[in-house]
Amino acid sequence: MAVWKLTLSYDGSAFHGWQVQPGLSTIQGALADAIEYVVGERLLPQGSGRTDAGVHALGQVASVALAAPIPAANLQRALNRALPQSIRIHDAEAMPPDFHARHSATGKTYEYRIFPRQLQQPLGGTNMETACSPFDAPFLWDCRWALHAEPMQQAAALLRGTHDFSSFAAADPDRLQRGSAASGPNPVKTIHASSISCEDGLILYRVTGSGFLHHMVRNIVGTLADIGRGTLEPEDIARILAAKDRSAAGPTAPPQGLFLVRVEYADSGSYVQPLQQMETVEVGQ
Amino acid sequence: MAVWKLTLSYDGSAFHGWQVQPGLSTIQGALADAIEYVVGERLLPQGSGRTDAGVHALGQVASVALAAPIPAANLQRALNRALPQSIRIHDAEAMPPDFHARHSATGKTYEYRIFPRQLQQPLGGTNMETACSPFDAPFLWDCRWALHAEPMQQAAALLRGTHDFSSFAAADPDRLQRGSAASGPNPVKTIHASSISCEDGLILYRVTGSGFLHHMVRNIVGTLADIGRGTLEPEDIARILAAKDRSAAGPTAPPQGLFLVRVEYADSGSYVQPLQQMETVEVGQ
Repeated sequence: MAVWKLTLSYDGSAFHGWQVQPGLSTIQGALADAIEYVVGERLLPQGSGRTDAGVHALGQVASVALAAPIPAANLQRALNRALPQSIRIHDAEAMPPDFHARHSATGKTYEYRIFPRQLQQPLGGTNMETACSPFDAPFLWDCRWALHAEPMQQAAALLRGTHDFSSFAAADPDRLQRGSAASGPNPVKTIHASSISCEDGLILYRVTGSGFLHHMVRNIVGTLADIGRGTLEPEDIARILAAKDRSAAGPTAPPQGLFLVRVEYADSGSYVQPLQQMETVEVGQ
Repeated sequence: MAVWKLTLSYDGSAFHGWQVQPGLSTIQGALADAIEYVVGERLLPQGSGRTDAGVHALGQVASVALAAPIPAANLQRALNRALPQSIRIHDAEAMPPDFHARHSATGKTYEYRIFPRQLQQPLGGTNMETACSPFDAPFLWDCRWALHAEPMQQAAALLRGTHDFSSFAAADPDRLQRGSAASGPNPVKTIHASSISCEDGLILYRVTGSGFLHHMVRNIVGTLADIGRGTLEPEDIARILAAKDRSAAGPTAPPQGLFLVRVEYADSGSYVQPLQQMETVEVGQ
């Protein structure tokens, strides 16, 4: 029996998110199918956290314990042969027996890609609108507003540090369904990095933190976009955080702009003790 | 009445090629629908040439004559609002009345993207296979062989110049259907540029020519891949060209790696005389 750490990327466009759901196509379900095909065992791989329908991953991590002895390179190759091309295993690594993709995670990095409305330089005529490439469109928010990056960057910086992020948290539908809304996750999270950059005509938001609440990154991005188009000011961030009320913040940005970039583990992925782990339990973005 | 030159890109994955076909989703059909929605006229835009099902475009050109007076920027924006996001108009330009996207074209550039099988550097263990990104997979040929780029580049260079490309031409299905196989297109074409490059783990083939036969680029790429994996030698190119027989060349590479990059026009898109035009009539790739 070996516990495997699988590092994978996926195009979330065609999936109903990470988590298995009856009758729906999910990443976790497709990975379970591939594992069953390769090793003949029906197992449910555990993800570092759920990603919502339409959200993508560059470096999601899943863990699964397999009885079958198999070299890492063979496992990776065989899983990729069995998976749809929209899910790829980039690395397979045998871990200590107590490794768990979610419980052992110490932090995560997300990136959100926005295509703002932009006009080409006028060349003696009317301004032509820069059209979003059809190859990029499934992987960004074509937001149709002109956005000013400077105030967005000021606001992004104000989110760094340890705050109560209740204003940026959606109620977790699974938790509501279980009737346990009263005992929700701890809304206090630590954000290590939070910044806006402009690359190739896109506005990118990158955020690294100890943990994230449901829809937290998308709610932050929706608020940053309101700041970028001038309906909110960077200074409103303090007021929004203090309100601890979802209605104080901006709208939820659409899922297809969001990428789970990387999951961090102490000691390059090895075990960290359970008390730390509980802080990083993660819900869907 | 104005003749418009529309420059567009498209993700061909979900389309049955450029040309309108009854009951099938095509680029030309989607563009005609958008034009009808915007200006209220049912017209068939003419492309610089057909692209086959699954083939993409970065710079396809279409022409259409519109009675409605409309500023270029408004036409571009309105068409993009009406089109699916997998087709984008990047430029709209009013042209002289005799401009025709196909008849006026003087050359074209295609790019073909290959993801060869590659192993990561061994780090004290088994070789992990580099997995193709799920975000790139719909836009390249995941060919599963290790390929040597140097002989491919030698072979690509041998295709430059004016040759009879019959060995790289598929029979045009439309022409066969019309019963006019005997009067096929002139198989002698001039290739101005033909080269292999390696970028970001991909092998790219770029070719510029006066005109291309049906499936010609994909048949060249299938042959170059045979050379890259060693089943053919660069020197075989001369023999294959001389044979003037499709069975002498390699297989047809799959459509999703092919991009129509650019269409060239004399005087930046203005009119060229009819005799030159007839050489550049183009069939599906």
